[in-house]
Amino acid sequence: MRTGVATGVGMLGCGTVGGGVARLLDERAAELAARAGGPLRLAAVAVRDLGKARGPGLGGARLTTSPEEVVRDPQVHVVVELMGGAEPARSLVLEALGAGKPVITANKLLLAHHGPELFARARAAGVDLAFEGAVGGGIPVVRTLRDALASDRVTRLSGILNGTSNYVLTRMQREGLAFDEVLREAQRLGYAEAEPSLDVDGHDAAHKLVVLAALAFGAELPPGDVPTAGLRALAPIDHAAAERFGYVVKPLAVAEALDAGSVAMRVGPTLVPRDGLLAGVGGVLNAVLVEGEALGPCLLSGPGAGAGPTAVSVVADLLDVVAATRSGAAGRLSAAVRTAPARVRDPGLAHAPFYLRFVVRDEPGVLGRITTALGRAGVSIRELFQRAQRPVGEAEPLVDVVMLTHAATRASVAAAVGELDGAAFAVEPARVLPVAL
Amino acid sequence: MRTGVATGVGMLGCGTVGGGVARLLDERAAELAARAGGPLRLAAVAVRDLGKARGPGLGGARLTTSPEEVVRDPQVHVVVELMGGAEPARSLVLEALGAGKPVITANKLLLAHHGPELFARARAAGVDLAFEGAVGGGIPVVRTLRDALASDRVTRLSGILNGTSNYVLTRMQREGLAFDEVLREAQRLGYAEAEPSLDVDGHDAAHKLVVLAALAFGAELPPGDVPTAGLRALAPIDHAAAERFGYVVKPLAVAEALDAGSVAMRVGPTLVPRDGLLAGVGGVLNAVLVEGEALGPCLLSGPGAGAGPTAVSVVADLLDVVAATRSGAAGRLSAAVRTAPARVRDPGLAHAPFYLRFVVRDEPGVLGRITTALGRAGVSIRELFQRAQRPVGEAEPLVDVVMLTHAATRASVAAAVGELDGAAFAVEPARVLPVAL
Repeated sequence: MRTGVATGVGMLGCGTVGGGVARLLDERAAELAARAGGPLRLAAVAVRDLGKARGPGLGGARLTTSPEEVVRDPQVHVVVELMGGAEPARSLVLEALGAGKPVITANKLLLAHHGPELFARARAAGVDLAFEGAVGGGIPVVRTLRDALASDRVTRLSGILNGTSNYVLTRMQREGLAFDEVLREAQRLGYAEAEPSLDVDGHDAAHKLVVLAALAFGAELPPGDVPTAGLRALAPIDHAAAERFGYVVKPLAVAEALDAGSVAMRVGPTLVPRDGLLAGVGGVLNAVLVEGEALGPCLLSGPGAGAGPTAVSVVADLLDVVAATRSGAAGRLSAAVRTAPARVRDPGLAHAPFYLRFVVRDEPGVLGRITTALGRAGVSIRELFQRAQRPVGEAEPLVDVVMLTHAATRASVAAAVGELDGAAFAVEPARVLPVAL
Repeated sequence: MRTGVATGVGMLGCGTVGGGVARLLDERAAELAARAGGPLRLAAVAVRDLGKARGPGLGGARLTTSPEEVVRDPQVHVVVELMGGAEPARSLVLEALGAGKPVITANKLLLAHHGPELFARARAAGVDLAFEGAVGGGIPVVRTLRDALASDRVTRLSGILNGTSNYVLTRMQREGLAFDEVLREAQRLGYAEAEPSLDVDGHDAAHKLVVLAALAFGAELPPGDVPTAGLRALAPIDHAAAERFGYVVKPLAVAEALDAGSVAMRVGPTLVPRDGLLAGVGGVLNAVLVEGEALGPCLLSGPGAGAGPTAVSVVADLLDVVAATRSGAAGRLSAAVRTAPARVRDPGLAHAPFYLRFVVRDEPGVLGRITTALGRAGVSIRELFQRAQRPVGEAEPLVDVVMLTHAATRASVAAAVGELDGAAFAVEPARVLPVAL
């Protein structure tokens, strides 16, 4: 990649993000060439269907259905991986890196499950593996973390990392709607998948959190170990009660560095202060709150997904990688990511206030039994109210007992809730949501 | 600056930010050396008073009261300017750049007034001038704009750029306090200067907005031309009324690219939607909302000032500059800032809703005269309420007439307000606040 000579870009996958990347490379060719130190040329693109009509910017590129061909093409100097999924993406990225070709990927699942292997290969080959588009497309969280880390110690990350979940909770909160109702509409509008589990059960956010924690804390964490709670058990009353207590329910992913080798992590609906930075992140927006020792809290928020924003992140990475390679600084991005095996720590001993809702039969003495059990477990109540559910037909009368506790350990809350969920008056398992400070 | 050889850093000024930079250079020496490609050594520091006790990290540095000596010191390869003010900072930075030494500055006043001259000198000398710490310390807004610009067109910037103003408005809003009361307390706590005009009258925010607009739009704009409105005329009722209408009053700075060569800009208290991203930016926090064609809206928020956060920004710049210089890519940051003279456009023709409050004598027919004058000017009212002021002693009874208009031009609102301010029933000039969408 000598100055002035075109850099050949090979792209694996050409869906909406790939189309956006091709368009930016075409429309902004002059600016990009100036920044990169020479033109960027889309040389080859691996697609699923050669017959499909394509958007602008693909004119000069060779289309093929073989991603291996793209990786091995001598005209391709940099590989952009936008296929998604673990395989064959993993093998293709490993091959490209091994051949000395830097890789830009927007594949969070790949990085969450195989990041350490891929970064080790990149370091060994002295080439860059860049991934700004994988977490919060359009939000410069990866480079912010990379910069902050050089001069600061990051202590905690809190993120709204899944746009679908945020959309569902925002509409429930603002319009008093039920979960199922909003989800169905989100599916109709294309904001949610037909199979929404990856989004609304927290797995997608857990993948992204694992990628961010690797960068922020140098921790290799098994994505399956992250405790995830989904949104399905939430009802309109949870949003109304949170508001009454001065909070908003947000789909939060939190990672906090503890001692060396362990990170406290969780993903799930969480109460955040109504006047705080995260409360304003509504609709499909994503956000990451980075807390550093010297930096203090810094919030980055934006679309988080979608063709345009993710393509902007991918192209920004492409520029960094090409400029670094041209100036002989190849491998610096990968060198910044050094991880060691770590474990997800049980947050059972951490202190936080909790939101609790018990759905119980309307019998005398129930409130006393609930508060007594909590008191015995050392959980003290800050605010409480009780509300009769609207009776459905001939069904027996039910009551919601809703409360905000003072700071307590998750373990003590779990002990009391476990006892109460087993009581004869309990109709459904209690809802337990942590409160972020 | 060969790999492995120490880079000598010269620092001009050693107040709280300078102390923070020295501490980071000391405490994070190993990480910084790894990132920069060789150790960073604080070689010389210009201070006001040689006798003053100093914090950690200054052990190896030569202290002097002559900033010229620091700039000319052959042991100094990079200059960090933290003196503030226009002169002698301008001359010192020009000299350093002319001598081929890259400069990192956190001086927004200097850049707002002399940015074009300094950037031209940096480009001519092929060295970098970096300034992340000048706007929103700790918030990576400069690098985000630089990256976004390579692959996108930025259309608008909206920022909460002055922490003191935000603190004052946040406390007025949340506690129903009067402006003077909060300002006095802020002064006692050290959040506001004894002479608060630079902050609460919008000039500091205007400086920062001019710096951001230079980067985002390539526009050289005279800071004195930015229309600025201060906070002094706001009363508790303005916050209460904004809340009733679904908004929060924030100290907003907005710049929008129009045709080539002109930028619509203004600084002043503005109503922002209560559920939006900017509403959650409370207390002394700063924020910048970047809107790009492909990117969509992206919010960056954080402390914005203070020793720790600004020092993190300065050190991140230092790393970029040293790494770029070591790898032969010196001057790339400065090359990205190309400006041409531009003018601040009168936003009189732009359409927006407005918040209006008239303070009038409690006489029959006044409401009719107000609504008639607005109607004649083509300003249509969306919501209105009237409230009697609490009478003070024997004073005549006064009334606040408060409203939210539909979208109107600023010129038509100004015409109607001009007429009404001249009426016999008007007691004070009307409050006119724009509404951000």
